[in-house]
Amino acid sequence: MGSQAHAAMLEASGIISPEDAKAIQAGLSQIMEEYEAHGVPEHIELEDIHMQVETRLRELIGEPAGRLHTARSRNDQVATDFRLWTTEAIHAVDVGLERFQRALLDRADEHADTIMPGFTHLQVAQPVTLGHHLMAYYEMAKRDRSRLADCRRRLNESPLGAAALAGTSFPVNRDWTAGQMGFDRPMANSMDAVSDRDFAIEFLSCCTQIALHLSRLAEEMILWASQPFGFVSLPDAWSTGSSIMPQKRNPDAAELVRGHSGRVIGCMTSLMVTMKGLPLAYSKDMQDDKAPVFEAYDLLCLSLAVMAGMVSNVSFNPARMREVAASGFSTATDLADWLVREHGLPFREAHHVTGSIVKLCEARGTGLDVISADDLVAINPKLAGSKMPDLSVEGSVASRTSAGGTAPVRVREAIAAARKEMEA
Amino acid sequence: MGSQAHAAMLEASGIISPEDAKAIQAGLSQIMEEYEAHGVPEHIELEDIHMQVETRLRELIGEPAGRLHTARSRNDQVATDFRLWTTEAIHAVDVGLERFQRALLDRADEHADTIMPGFTHLQVAQPVTLGHHLMAYYEMAKRDRSRLADCRRRLNESPLGAAALAGTSFPVNRDWTAGQMGFDRPMANSMDAVSDRDFAIEFLSCCTQIALHLSRLAEEMILWASQPFGFVSLPDAWSTGSSIMPQKRNPDAAELVRGHSGRVIGCMTSLMVTMKGLPLAYSKDMQDDKAPVFEAYDLLCLSLAVMAGMVSNVSFNPARMREVAASGFSTATDLADWLVREHGLPFREAHHVTGSIVKLCEARGTGLDVISADDLVAINPKLAGSKMPDLSVEGSVASRTSAGGTAPVRVREAIAAARKEMEA
Amino acid sequence: MGSQAHAAMLEASGIISPEDAKAIQAGLSQIMEEYEAHGVPEHIELEDIHMQVETRLRELIGEPAGRLHTARSRNDQVATDFRLWTTEAIHAVDVGLERFQRALLDRADEHADTIMPGFTHLQVAQPVTLGHHLMAYYEMAKRDRSRLADCRRRLNESPLGAAALAGTSFPVNRDWTAGQMGFDRPMANSMDAVSDRDFAIEFLSCCTQIALHLSRLAEEMILWASQPFGFVSLPDAWSTGSSIMPQKRNPDAAELVRGHSGRVIGCMTSLMVTMKGLPLAYSKDMQDDKAPVFEAYDLLCLSLAVMAGMVSNVSFNPARMREVAASGFSTATDLADWLVREHGLPFREAHHVTGSIVKLCEARGTGLDVISADDLVAINPKLAGSKMPDLSVEGSVASRTSAGGTAPVRVREAIAAARKEMEA
Amino acid sequence: MGSQAHAAMLEASGIISPEDAKAIQAGLSQIMEEYEAHGVPEHIELEDIHMQVETRLRELIGEPAGRLHTARSRNDQVATDFRLWTTEAIHAVDVGLERFQRALLDRADEHADTIMPGFTHLQVAQPVTLGHHLMAYYEMAKRDRSRLADCRRRLNESPLGAAALAGTSFPVNRDWTAGQMGFDRPMANSMDAVSDRDFAIEFLSCCTQIALHLSRLAEEMILWASQPFGFVSLPDAWSTGSSIMPQKRNPDAAELVRGHSGRVIGCMTSLMVTMKGLPLAYSKDMQDDKAPVFEAYDLLCLSLAVMAGMVSNVSFNPARMREVAASGFSTATDLADWLVREHGLPFREAHHVTGSIVKLCEARGTGLDVISADDLVAINPKLAGSKMPDLSVEGSVASRTSAGGTAPVRVREAIAAARKEMEA
Repeated sequence: MGSQAHAAMLEASGIISPEDAKAIQAGLSQIMEEYEAHGVPEHIELEDIHMQVETRLRELIGEPAGRLHTARSRNDQVATDFRLWTTEAIHAVDVGLERFQRALLDRADEHADTIMPGFTHLQVAQPVTLGHHLMAYYEMAKRDRSRLADCRRRLNESPLGAAALAGTSFPVNRDWTAGQMGFDRPMANSMDAVSDRDFAIEFLSCCTQIALHLSRLAEEMILWASQPFGFVSLPDAWSTGSSIMPQKRNPDAAELVRGHSGRVIGCMTSLMVTMKGLPLAYSKDMQDDKAPVFEAYDLLCLSLAVMAGMVSNVSFNPARMREVAASGFSTATDLADWLVREHGLPFREAHHVTGSIVKLCEARGTGLDVISADDLVAINPKLAGSKMPDLSVEGSVASRTSAGGTAPVRVREAIAAARKEMEA
Repeated sequence: MGSQAHAAMLEASGIISPEDAKAIQAGLSQIMEEYEAHGVPEHIELEDIHMQVETRLRELIGEPAGRLHTARSRNDQVATDFRLWTTEAIHAVDVGLERFQRALLDRADEHADTIMPGFTHLQVAQPVTLGHHLMAYYEMAKRDRSRLADCRRRLNESPLGAAALAGTSFPVNRDWTAGQMGFDRPMANSMDAVSDRDFAIEFLSCCTQIALHLSRLAEEMILWASQPFGFVSLPDAWSTGSSIMPQKRNPDAAELVRGHSGRVIGCMTSLMVTMKGLPLAYSKDMQDDKAPVFEAYDLLCLSLAVMAGMVSNVSFNPARMREVAASGFSTATDLADWLVREHGLPFREAHHVTGSIVKLCEARGTGLDVISADDLVAINPKLAGSKMPDLSVEGSVASRTSAGGTAPVRVREAIAAARKEMEA
Repeated sequence: MGSQAHAAMLEASGIISPEDAKAIQAGLSQIMEEYEAHGVPEHIELEDIHMQVETRLRELIGEPAGRLHTARSRNDQVATDFRLWTTEAIHAVDVGLERFQRALLDRADEHADTIMPGFTHLQVAQPVTLGHHLMAYYEMAKRDRSRLADCRRRLNESPLGAAALAGTSFPVNRDWTAGQMGFDRPMANSMDAVSDRDFAIEFLSCCTQIALHLSRLAEEMILWASQPFGFVSLPDAWSTGSSIMPQKRNPDAAELVRGHSGRVIGCMTSLMVTMKGLPLAYSKDMQDDKAPVFEAYDLLCLSLAVMAGMVSNVSFNPARMREVAASGFSTATDLADWLVREHGLPFREAHHVTGSIVKLCEARGTGLDVISADDLVAINPKLAGSKMPDLSVEGSVASRTSAGGTAPVRVREAIAAARKEMEA
Repeated sequence: MGSQAHAAMLEASGIISPEDAKAIQAGLSQIMEEYEAHGVPEHIELEDIHMQVETRLRELIGEPAGRLHTARSRNDQVATDFRLWTTEAIHAVDVGLERFQRALLDRADEHADTIMPGFTHLQVAQPVTLGHHLMAYYEMAKRDRSRLADCRRRLNESPLGAAALAGTSFPVNRDWTAGQMGFDRPMANSMDAVSDRDFAIEFLSCCTQIALHLSRLAEEMILWASQPFGFVSLPDAWSTGSSIMPQKRNPDAAELVRGHSGRVIGCMTSLMVTMKGLPLAYSKDMQDDKAPVFEAYDLLCLSLAVMAGMVSNVSFNPARMREVAASGFSTATDLADWLVREHGLPFREAHHVTGSIVKLCEARGTGLDVISADDLVAINPKLAGSKMPDLSVEGSVASRTSAGGTAPVRVREAIAAARKEMEA
């Protein structure tokens, strides 16, 4: 594609003749067809794909093949190709993220009212809704997509015409080739164009952040599938058995996603270290830009597909989730808030009183919801005459109606807003 | 600042009384003055800065201090503070980049015509202009600033009101506090708000990329200052002596910048690994978000100041640069291009012919510029009747007038465009 | 200490006079006392600690101070100091590991018979003993200590006398100074002595591996303390409360240890990147060797102390552990093994039959231990006449008596062997 | 090999019959022959190589194939295989290092007297000998090999018999299988045996350190081959041309080695992150241990071969090296040392006087070697009556006879000692 745009420009600028241009275009089209039909043959005696295309072109059309490389260099050529590839890769990752978001939205919708424990420090903290929890990942994916869009916009400039590093004395039209290949404009400085790989590093940074987000959901799936949690059952397609333990249903897919995050971080580290301290312009070290980018891309596309599939197909166990949500005095904050609201206690005092009530319940072996008005007075005489608060987990989540809060009404609003965003 | 906005909102929403709000605001103002005047005291028996402010507030105003923490949690509080800090840090780095750009522009202007060798693989490749070389770094810095702007835009949302993780049952006004603190809007999901640190990782990614760009210029300064190159003399302020070798003038500042790039990469690795695989919502691991971000920020601000100063103050040695630019048959490409243009040779054949001429000159121990018309004919009879090309380094750079090329005329245009951009 | 050894050697080799040497030693002793009494003062106008010592020495003894730096350079001096520091740091980390091992041994002893679930993929796999699980960490720490010992042995060579890079023309006695400072020998090549920092990278690699091992135990503590697991209660000293949720007891200490592993990895990455591609000999980049090494050391010492304390003080909940150990058909492998042993089934067939029995129990909602002889025959007529196997979790662990297995008898042997090792 | 040892042990322990064992051994031998002859076929419907071997075994020998997996699990099997592989990989890397060392020794021998500039901060510091410089890398490689040997010794324990995680109830003989496969002993704890990958991380740490050492020599080769340096000419086999610049001879091989160091660091980061925070015992994340280890190994073996070849075949340019060695007042330290020795000046004063003489020469545009006795007296009257010192670069290097110094006599001793070591 790069060569086709270049040859057309060479003709339009009068650098090669129409006849040569025609022959070159015909040859390139045939090579494209050959590669699509039979794959790209590997001739390891030729240095790279560029020499291979040119060699085949010479077989097909003879001498005019030697005119294709006029006014360009391998340096601007590989930079152009790699930017084109990365643009497509960004699109593919974005599509993967969109599917992941849709899977999250569908399940969030289904479970906008489902109670589950919200954890901090992996301790039961406050009841939340499963829909709300899933929507947190929707938001992360939204930022991830926004990062990819920024990366794409920034990289979408054409290096072609920078030649080896200094530009060229041929009257090339860089705007034209840029437009032809879908770039927004040519890069402004020829040395920068062939020397930098920050676009690839930025793409890897985006990939790494996505992989980290996925690693967190993967960790949760693994936790939730563990017997002590028992929050989910994994469908057979997303779990595997054991060579020795016939009863096992292992969350392999989630574990691989979690493990892959390490490799994606490794890929990013790799390219950063490779680029460190290189003088301008092109150095061969930069040939090591491809392997980590391709590897991160492959691992990430797989991870996105796995997590979208797992989110769509996992069976949640609402009864078990509610049971754990109600443990650990999870509505203690609701009690403290009620003391503030109903009795005008400063929050710090309410926090302290609640602590005493929790200790009382711990001693009795009961939950907070069975506390009586007399208990309150015994702890603090100011609390006399209380109508008792609703300390059920349902009451708790329903009350958290602040913007962005976990109340089902807010979650449904968030889902509706997200669906609208996705259509736009 | 976060507490002031929160207290004002609590009052406006009727959650605390006007009297309490007034006392809290007065107390917070006094604490701010105290901290500005005498620094922040360290009470290590108190858990963190938040407990310290609240404790001091209680000393100053008594019971109402206990009402400040209503409807918030440390989790949304620290996320808010860290985003505010990062916004300011982005601004400071951006200012550092702008100064660096201005230093580059001034020296590029001065040296728009100065010939130097353009290297690929650290081999003399083609002559370029020093102004062009410096402008390549201007472009890198421009993308770096654009990345920072994207990062700032994305992170500029307020977590306040997310409370511990679930939102709150108090009728808080998150839009109002967000606006008050300069955020664009509140974050959309309370669990996401307290759980994610992708904004800090994105900032570190930006910092790392900047550090990598600086490491490349630092490497060049070190090379250029080395006796075999001799392209620059470092001013005393940017070099140091030796405890044993009295004659040394070491490019310490550039070496530190190059070395610091390793540490900035380390900081980014650190936070990524820390976040890997953490379930929602807040975990204490995230307390390790500050140290790497603060360290990277400090190292980077120092590196930017150093490189801006060094670019401004380094003495270039144009004579030595020109001498090396003319070595290594650096205008061989110009000869090949001339063969294409004047004699209609296909580029590949021109490349081949030029190779033969280079070999001839190597054998004779001369440069390309003394080749004669007879030499050309001896190599290829088709080349008869040639007016000889200008193969001087000056002729070479002047001819590279393609968009973004190294010709002085293009460099001056690029500088003018950059100055305009900087004003906007 | 380095200067004392150097001065003594200068005297013994006749390079400085006995009078000068005496004055220098007296001055250095006084400086050491001053620093020990009042701390090392910071004179930021002096370049570093070496200039500061020399400046103070001149104040104290006058002209002979200027003779101390004969036949050495800052380059060999800092390399010597850093190796001395690292040797001590290795010792301190080793002591931390030893304490951690002792804590593990004590609790393993106490719980050699305590049943807990052994997990693979965080799925209940087979019952194991808590003692056996803790002894796995003992083994990891043993390898960690062995790595440190190798690192110490390899780095324990003296750079002193390498001078700036080339050695010196003074008749120094490097063997003597090496011995004086506790090094095994002088380094063999002066350029290598001042140029390499592989000893620091190796130390960081050791630290990183230790941090990774600790991160795994920290993860387990966090899991075990989570309500759905309920395997442990953390003592108050190793957990903290919440600013909003009065009931919380958060495993902060373990979370910090897990988080710190990210920072230690970051430190190692930092130094590796800094050293990448530096030409010989000393470059100022290497000044960035200290910060990451000191940071990793501090974080690691803290992490070791925390985990030793946590292991010693955590309360295990054997009843809950046993309950989970018995869930999830955890003795299915025992059933399969029994089918192999008693009925001569090939393992693969036994695995298959066991799978059918697990399915049957799942359908009935029972555990494996209530399966009857008739059930076996119904599944496979060959299994007629069976005396039923012991499928209790106690029976399972007791049977795993292979070398290194989880049977209490093996665990006690392992503990005894470990105690013996520790005494040696 | 692992399966052969396991089957033989099962027979010897009476766990399977002699007939079954015989059939299994015959089948395994045939499979080994098939794989050696035709490669390992890829049956992607089978989970991994283990299932593939077992499936093929069943085709060949029928039912007894199902008995091979008795008393083992995939978990101990893969850990065993990976340790066996790593042992071989260590050997291969060690052989590569040994060849690299021999190449260094041969060239060091040849150039034990060749003068070159010793750099610090890439500034000409003091003259050294090329042989001495090369021997610095010999020392690094020696430590690298010593690290590999330690790694091998530590990892050479057998996991086989740990089964899934808990050991087995079959009467296996782990000592026997360990010995059979060349391991020193069985691992002591079954959970540790299947859970840890520190041996792979340690191998990667060794690889990374080697890659870093090679990256430094690669950087030097690139510098030395650059026209301003001109210290070396690269043989055609170790350099490549340009698609646009016919005169180029690029040090691609060295650049790739330098670039690969980034990827090897990335591989190590990858596995460390993957292992971070995994609870015991086996998790699927660990499947991501292979790719980074294999990649690092391949890159490193290539890098070692490249650098050994380059060291052997590069042409040094002693005249140019000597010329640069004599520039930059490189013998100023010799002058200072002479002032100490001959005139009894304290080193600090000698350093100061030398600085004045350097300034005088700079002003005159001469080198240090033309300074006269009158010049000395003019600077400091105490210096009257001096016989002038030998400040030639030859005199300088010959004088640095301290242990490990650059004097040719010392370098020859070092080479002789190294050759002796290599024979041992």
